[in-house]
Amino acid sequence: MSSELQISPAIHDPQGQEKQQQAAGVGILLQIMMLVLSFVLGHVLRRHKFYYLPEASASLLIGLIVGGLANISNTETSIRTWFNFHDEFFFLFLLPPIIFQSGFSLQPKPFFSNFGAIVTFSVLGTFVASMVTGLLVYLGGLMFLMYRLPLVECLMFGSLISATDPVTVLSIFQELGSDVNLYALVFGESVLNDAMAISLYRTMSLVRSHSSGQNFFMVIVRFLETFVGSMSAGVGVGFTSALLFKYAGLDVDNLQNLECCLFVLFPYFSYMLAEGLSLSGIVSILFTGIVMKHYTYSNLSANSQRFVSAFFHLISSLAETFVFIYMGFDIAMEKHSWSHLGFIFFSILFIVIARAANVFGCGYLVNLARPAHRKIPMTHQKALWYSGLRGAMAFALALQSVHDLPEGHGQTIFTATTAIVVLTVLLIGGSTGTMLEALEVVGDSHDTSLGDGFEVVNSRYMTSYDDEDTPSGSGFRTKLREFHKSAASFTELDKNYLTPFFTSNNGDYDDEDNIEQHHEERIPFTRRGNLNNRG
Amino acid sequence: MSSELQISPAIHDPQGQEKQQQAAGVGILLQIMMLVLSFVLGHVLRRHKFYYLPEASASLLIGLIVGGLANISNTETSIRTWFNFHDEFFFLFLLPPIIFQSGFSLQPKPFFSNFGAIVTFSVLGTFVASMVTGLLVYLGGLMFLMYRLPLVECLMFGSLISATDPVTVLSIFQELGSDVNLYALVFGESVLNDAMAISLYRTMSLVRSHSSGQNFFMVIVRFLETFVGSMSAGVGVGFTSALLFKYAGLDVDNLQNLECCLFVLFPYFSYMLAEGLSLSGIVSILFTGIVMKHYTYSNLSANSQRFVSAFFHLISSLAETFVFIYMGFDIAMEKHSWSHLGFIFFSILFIVIARAANVFGCGYLVNLARPAHRKIPMTHQKALWYSGLRGAMAFALALQSVHDLPEGHGQTIFTATTAIVVLTVLLIGGSTGTMLEALEVVGDSHDTSLGDGFEVVNSRYMTSYDDEDTPSGSGFRTKLREFHKSAASFTELDKNYLTPFFTSNNGDYDDEDNIEQHHEERIPFTRRGNLNNRG
Repeated sequence: MSSELQISPAIHDPQGQEKQQQAAGVGILLQIMMLVLSFVLGHVLRRHKFYYLPEASASLLIGLIVGGLANISNTETSIRTWFNFHDEFFFLFLLPPIIFQSGFSLQPKPFFSNFGAIVTFSVLGTFVASMVTGLLVYLGGLMFLMYRLPLVECLMFGSLISATDPVTVLSIFQELGSDVNLYALVFGESVLNDAMAISLYRTMSLVRSHSSGQNFFMVIVRFLETFVGSMSAGVGVGFTSALLFKYAGLDVDNLQNLECCLFVLFPYFSYMLAEGLSLSGIVSILFTGIVMKHYTYSNLSANSQRFVSAFFHLISSLAETFVFIYMGFDIAMEKHSWSHLGFIFFSILFIVIARAANVFGCGYLVNLARPAHRKIPMTHQKALWYSGLRGAMAFALALQSVHDLPEGHGQTIFTATTAIVVLTVLLIGGSTGTMLEALEVVGDSHDTSLGDGFEVVNSRYMTSYDDEDTPSGSGFRTKLREFHKSAASFTELDKNYLTPFFTSNNGDYDDEDNIEQHHEERIPFTRRGNLNNRG
Repeated sequence: MSSELQISPAIHDPQGQEKQQQAAGVGILLQIMMLVLSFVLGHVLRRHKFYYLPEASASLLIGLIVGGLANISNTETSIRTWFNFHDEFFFLFLLPPIIFQSGFSLQPKPFFSNFGAIVTFSVLGTFVASMVTGLLVYLGGLMFLMYRLPLVECLMFGSLISATDPVTVLSIFQELGSDVNLYALVFGESVLNDAMAISLYRTMSLVRSHSSGQNFFMVIVRFLETFVGSMSAGVGVGFTSALLFKYAGLDVDNLQNLECCLFVLFPYFSYMLAEGLSLSGIVSILFTGIVMKHYTYSNLSANSQRFVSAFFHLISSLAETFVFIYMGFDIAMEKHSWSHLGFIFFSILFIVIARAANVFGCGYLVNLARPAHRKIPMTHQKALWYSGLRGAMAFALALQSVHDLPEGHGQTIFTATTAIVVLTVLLIGGSTGTMLEALEVVGDSHDTSLGDGFEVVNSRYMTSYDDEDTPSGSGFRTKLREFHKSAASFTELDKNYLTPFFTSNNGDYDDEDNIEQHHEERIPFTRRGNLNNRG
């Protein structure tokens, strides 16, 4: 978009350049009009409680329709050009706000109280899902069921397609009212699995380009380098910002603009720092978002808090809607070959299987570690399994894979991913309401038992729950328990050391009314913040 | 910045691409760090009331220093590349928010009450200044005083260098407290002269590229096409947005995000609409800003009003600071040839003369039309003359002229403009405080007489002032009076028809307490909104 646009008037070929300039204007105009239309349509559909076409699907459909029309009309080539921006535009301008907002809108309490389960699902689970998908696609290729890709590329595809997008599902959860724990699980899992998927993708991509003499050990090191390195960079920037805002004394009334300018610069700083260190900017900005929400945010003045929340919410809504429109437009504009159809069909089958392996496998592990009254019920696991829409992250990685891989392979992965995104958004998005009602995990009837499965992690409660523990643990179970406890002790660390050190309030973590509150607690802000607000 | 950055990892040349990718990261990191530094330094300087280095100058200096260091160090080439983005980046991402904000932060009342004077200074005056500068530069070339440019190119240079930037001066006005009328004049003139300068520049550029068979009449038509056409497009989009927000009923509490998303999209829509119609997007977005502030803004909910003000303020502060940093960086990085020195020296002399012709000439005309007790005093005219800093707009047009003109010519204009911007920002910016105090147009002592010269334009007052009019009008004076009255009748039209039609409030324009209020009135928001807030 930015790179192709020529605003400067003509010198050598006035007519041609002027025409090009106008086409650029028309292209961007069209994009803005589609954005406006998406917001308005989304708002109207929501007001009429029409859950079969959530906003993301509506945006996608608008893109599909306009793309289809542009495809038929004569102007195709010029308009096409202005839409065909590079993946850098995605990675520099569209993804960072979306991913930052997903970290920033995590409500720390329900997130940390399900921390163990979320980490299990998103780290271990995404690893399992990526491997299963990759291996199945590889086997499918070997058996001539589908286009044949080398193993590393299959694993790259498996990684990128394992990044789920919770937007649509969560907006419906919120609309219908749902269990806080289920909500926290779906949200937390989908946020962190982006980080995992991108790290896996990059690792595989590195393995591919330095393919000779790499052993399994090096792959693990590479992965840890990307994941842990990016995470540390992000967390480091977040902590730095917290200290800056704690001691700079900017939270007085007339410095609001300075405060907000600095606050807004930090996420991008984190992103570019990681990229400059050859790490993953996306993973880094995600953790910066989580840390900045948890620590820095509370050091802001009340006005600035309101402003930055609304700001990131706005920016990410715009970016997200744009991404869905663009995906629809792109798929309508693509010259499709039917040869990819088999690949698409089997990929969908495989990702459904892989996600089942992820959710039910990890669900079993988590339930081993949890005491009886706080196990994740099967209905929740099914809902989590069902919420596996693919969205912006998968699309962006697929866009990148076109550059990373040889032509045919990259194009196959890109086409398959686009198709999977469109299908899952339209089908799963449209049926989520019905499905959630069928599983009986939503609705007001359930509201009273909202806090039932809530894993409370303040120390007093934690101790008592260790006491009531049934002493039937095998060695493996004990280890799981220990892991579980370490998650709890992280919360302790946070409460006793991190929060007092990085924020102005002295760890008054509403200790006393923790348990009572859970029963009244409303569903936290979604990835899009308060989605009702949007339209 | 966006167009060059390659995030995607390597395929064919992993080492080289990876290095390039890291350099991109480092370049952007550096930019973010300079932004943060500028904001912090500006804040510290302001807190210590050090007026010799206003924020814009500080940003410029930071750019100069970092550019100088990068120039010395080895990494020059790679960092240079990431800074060397095209003028499209300026025209698409940096200028629109700055220009929109300058229109959006105009306080309608003082602006409209000095409407006649402001239009005279900015339309007639900028025309005069452009022509005077252009002709003097042409004559200078003929007399071998400086680099010789063709007449049309001299006039292009005259136009682009006539766009003034009030940021620094206004921030000091605000800091020291100044006369509202002087403030409105300086602000209004510098906002509208951007529109005039860009229209003149485009007209000259068109004349140049279709040089054969153009007569003077066609030039006028071209100019009106650009100016009036862009203005109409901008005003049209503004009015459309006002009606949309009046009737869409979005000003309820939980639709804030939708409301803000739509509001934020309109300016860019106006910009791209004008560009798509081959008009000037900058002129269009400026008038959209004025109209949206005056009509659409009052149709928003209170929360959204607060948000959008802060939003545009933030975005434009970032863009503006970035522009000043970039200008400093660019001038430090340029390979300078001393051959431009003469051109720069004489250009500065000529623009000083041209601005004098503008201000004192138009001041004389305006005073002819105004009654005795409301004439613009000489001190105000001098202050207006002195406030002629050149900034982002002149720089952006000069950047464009490099593409529009043959190599040597464009480069000369660009170098001269950059030098003029840097010199005026540093010298005028640093001395404004002293100068304003010398002219005795600032300070608390003056505060009591704040409403003295205020040209009140509500009908009752207007009539009485027509009555007390000294009947010494020549034919020319009568015409000026009529023009003056037409400005007043526009205010009438606005009050009686436009405001009730486009906004939800029914024209309750605080009719009664209009006169009393002026004496208490504080200085309106500057181009940067409330500049204190910034740093």
